[in-house]
Amino acid sequence: MHITSKPASESHTIMNELVLPNDTNPLHNLMGGRLLHLMDIAAAISAQKHSNHIVVTASVDNVSFKHAVKLGDVITITAKVTRAFHTSMEVKIEVWSENIPSGSKIKSNEAYYTFVALDDEGKPALVPELIPETEEEKHLYDSAWSRREQRLILAGKMKPEDATHLKAIFFPEL
Amino acid sequence: MHITSKPASESHTIMNELVLPNDTNPLHNLMGGRLLHLMDIAAAISAQKHSNHIVVTASVDNVSFKHAVKLGDVITITAKVTRAFHTSMEVKIEVWSENIPSGSKIKSNEAYYTFVALDDEGKPALVPELIPETEEEKHLYDSAWSRREQRLILAGKMKPEDATHLKAIFFPEL
Amino acid sequence: MHITSKPASESHTIMNELVLPNDTNPLHNLMGGRLLHLMDIAAAISAQKHSNHIVVTASVDNVSFKHAVKLGDVITITAKVTRAFHTSMEVKIEVWSENIPSGSKIKSNEAYYTFVALDDEGKPALVPELIPETEEEKHLYDSAWSRREQRLILAGKMKPEDATHLKAIFFPEL
Amino acid sequence: MHITSKPASESHTIMNELVLPNDTNPLHNLMGGRLLHLMDIAAAISAQKHSNHIVVTASVDNVSFKHAVKLGDVITITAKVTRAFHTSMEVKIEVWSENIPSGSKIKSNEAYYTFVALDDEGKPALVPELIPETEEEKHLYDSAWSRREQRLILAGKMKPEDATHLKAIFFPEL
Amino acid sequence: MHITSKPASESHTIMNELVLPNDTNPLHNLMGGRLLHLMDIAAAISAQKHSNHIVVTASVDNVSFKHAVKLGDVITITAKVTRAFHTSMEVKIEVWSENIPSGSKIKSNEAYYTFVALDDEGKPALVPELIPETEEEKHLYDSAWSRREQRLILAGKMKPEDATHLKAIFFPEL
Amino acid sequence: MHITSKPASESHTIMNELVLPNDTNPLHNLMGGRLLHLMDIAAAISAQKHSNHIVVTASVDNVSFKHAVKLGDVITITAKVTRAFHTSMEVKIEVWSENIPSGSKIKSNEAYYTFVALDDEGKPALVPELIPETEEEKHLYDSAWSRREQRLILAGKMKPEDATHLKAIFFPEL
Repeated sequence: MHITSKPASESHTIMNELVLPNDTNPLHNLMGGRLLHLMDIAAAISAQKHSNHIVVTASVDNVSFKHAVKLGDVITITAKVTRAFHTSMEVKIEVWSENIPSGSKIKSNEAYYTFVALDDEGKPALVPELIPETEEEKHLYDSAWSRREQRLILAGKMKPEDATHLKAIFFPEL
Repeated sequence: MHITSKPASESHTIMNELVLPNDTNPLHNLMGGRLLHLMDIAAAISAQKHSNHIVVTASVDNVSFKHAVKLGDVITITAKVTRAFHTSMEVKIEVWSENIPSGSKIKSNEAYYTFVALDDEGKPALVPELIPETEEEKHLYDSAWSRREQRLILAGKMKPEDATHLKAIFFPEL
Repeated sequence: MHITSKPASESHTIMNELVLPNDTNPLHNLMGGRLLHLMDIAAAISAQKHSNHIVVTASVDNVSFKHAVKLGDVITITAKVTRAFHTSMEVKIEVWSENIPSGSKIKSNEAYYTFVALDDEGKPALVPELIPETEEEKHLYDSAWSRREQRLILAGKMKPEDATHLKAIFFPEL
Repeated sequence: MHITSKPASESHTIMNELVLPNDTNPLHNLMGGRLLHLMDIAAAISAQKHSNHIVVTASVDNVSFKHAVKLGDVITITAKVTRAFHTSMEVKIEVWSENIPSGSKIKSNEAYYTFVALDDEGKPALVPELIPETEEEKHLYDSAWSRREQRLILAGKMKPEDATHLKAIFFPEL
Repeated sequence: MHITSKPASESHTIMNELVLPNDTNPLHNLMGGRLLHLMDIAAAISAQKHSNHIVVTASVDNVSFKHAVKLGDVITITAKVTRAFHTSMEVKIEVWSENIPSGSKIKSNEAYYTFVALDDEGKPALVPELIPETEEEKHLYDSAWSRREQRLILAGKMKPEDATHLKAIFFPEL
Repeated sequence: MHITSKPASESHTIMNELVLPNDTNPLHNLMGGRLLHLMDIAAAISAQKHSNHIVVTASVDNVSFKHAVKLGDVITITAKVTRAFHTSMEVKIEVWSENIPSGSKIKSNEAYYTFVALDDEGKPALVPELIPETEEEKHLYDSAWSRREQRLILAGKMKPEDATHLKAIFFPEL
């Protein structure tokens, strides 16, 4: 029997990591690329849980780094699938960093990664549809379409004028 | 004496890496997050060369992964600053992957990262202006402004209707 | 103001990791020592959350490895403080391993680690008392004392005949 | 021809390692879990030498960490099989840490790990009996049985009242 | 069709690396062995490019380390094949280290590594002849023979009195 | 009190390592550069033991790689100081590789590394003289001088005609 849909909550993934010396630059800040790497691992686990397949990263959307994360901080990464599209999935990732001795904890980043599920021969595999349950999951599910349009435009695979969802965001007055 | 401008070519950085087992998933494909990490290191070196400062990653724009890079492949990453903005720099990164025994070489990715230059106390530091010299450098310099608008919108720091450069690109007919 | 007690739930820590090639032996099984390393990191984060101090590992109790964890599996490690003793804490760790494509998930290990909290000069620091709330937390809180006796005996710091809690468990008939 | 017994000395393994930045916490102390990892590798090599098979970790007994090992210290790990049990072996591990510029050297840890030998298909394989030769080897060989009882009790595989060797240690007066 | 000769320039390989904490000793200097490792990777990529085969290191000639390379420095490694010998190749490697904030850049090392090309079964494979084009490439091509004699003597495969090229260099007066 | 001489045996260092996936190329052979890295660590520990100082690598002599070392093999590296020269030391390193399931063990490499001892400010520090005791230690002590001449010539610091020890080796008939 093949599972045809799964709730978003089943893909929920949490990852805690200590920021180690080799993750940092000479100012003892976590390097952005190392964080992108950890986010990719957390998100890939989430997409695997939804699809029950090995997955490969298809894209990462804009990520901005507003807060310095320091050596010795604990970072908490959460990932959850927001929507499935045939053989691919969008995953939302949120990152908090915590300096435990000082008690400070801030949300440092959020991002969307997409993944493609692969079968044993490395061919794209169908994934179950995602069932959003909470208000936030429903909101992310609905907005996934305009993020997808934006990705397709940026990858040169869609003409901007066909991006009806996105147009509505950029030009709400039209 | 303070250097107030530098040609793009001085920031040109090349990095060759072998894809090792720990960089790959169970299908022996390079994991996307590991590549984002290597791209960040190459781009940070480029931004350091331009600014003569330690730099921290400020953002990464959309990156898509269209081609599987395999265990044992050689990846070549090039990075060059496209434009400087006061204390930050945009860097364009291109990635080729090469399977040497079979002789195949493809362009697997390209991306834009931005960096902020920091002084010894970790405060943002002024960077030299960038002088584009070749046709391609001039094109990247000119288009940097609309990529910047797009980043500001996506980070919630600019209203879409104020993004005049971007609007002209996405919706030239309007 | 100094916090003098905290509920167990505040120290709850979850860590998901992918088993990578360098974590495995030539039969592609996760090496036991690598898992002990990951369990230590998860448990140290948990003890840091409870104590708001940097912590160092004081001991690990018996750990047995009954199930092979394979390359590519996802391991989920949970850690929660069971009881605080002046400047030290006991943490219970549980490990699940999941082969996502086949859908199998088993509990592979559990263990108790203890940690000492340190202040900025590296001296032991007082930690808040632990408040157990659920039935399971209360059970673990109560049984922590006999595990502590056992550790002290094994470390040669207590005579077996003084281990009254332990004696009652091992040899209830006496 | 099949080897049916081997002296303990043939499994003697020595490992020297430098404590590197990524092995340490923000106080520059070697993390306990990293040491458990190194001890596992040394002990596994020792068990491989005795059995001439690939081995997997079956258990680690209580380990306590009494002394801080610092960044830049040299650690020396020795491992030797103490006794073979059909398809498994117990290995004793001792750890010294040395701060070479100051000339200080202390014994920082000792532990017992057990391993199971595996054949090419991953099934348990018979291992040669161990021949203890020195006084210390004979003592460790004799006491291996009560450590084994203790492990079986702690793993829930033996009832305390059947642990005759162990009982004699806890209650010598009986 | 089999390629029988290739210009030296096709094997030119550039590698930039950041010196990270785990690459350094307690005085924050890059460890020599780590640099030898990076040089080997750069040189192996170069030899792969020339031969279109997987390659294994056959030897490294004397390398001296005259300058301390510091944590946070950028190192630039260039590698180019100097001459091909049937199934092996000599590669010249040069290393620069750059402290970007201070603007200092020095040549820190140079070395010759040799590699053997292997086919899919791990047997030595014929490599194309090397065509030197620049003055420097021609000089390195011509002097490769006496470096090869020196290696053979040092490896005990040639008698010193048969090393006619080397004799002429070391003791031109004889 | 300052130690002015020490026997060679006090610097004896043994290191056992498992060859892990990330240490190997796509044919599952240990990469030469990784072995050079491990040899450097073993030799540096040996030189630290003799000098009681932090040391930095000054040079490595020719190393040849004649035997493939495979994934899963155990390598044993031994290092011992052969002679001290004011602030530097020569260390001889020998490497064995062992495929334990098949029972094969071969000597795969040997090499000489030199190190300089540094004081707390990073300045060269005097080291104790080395006292050779066994026949082999005496032979290595005596021959150290001609290896040193050869290094100085190769580094361009000595004219070949002044290398009296070396000349006697190349031209015994003179």
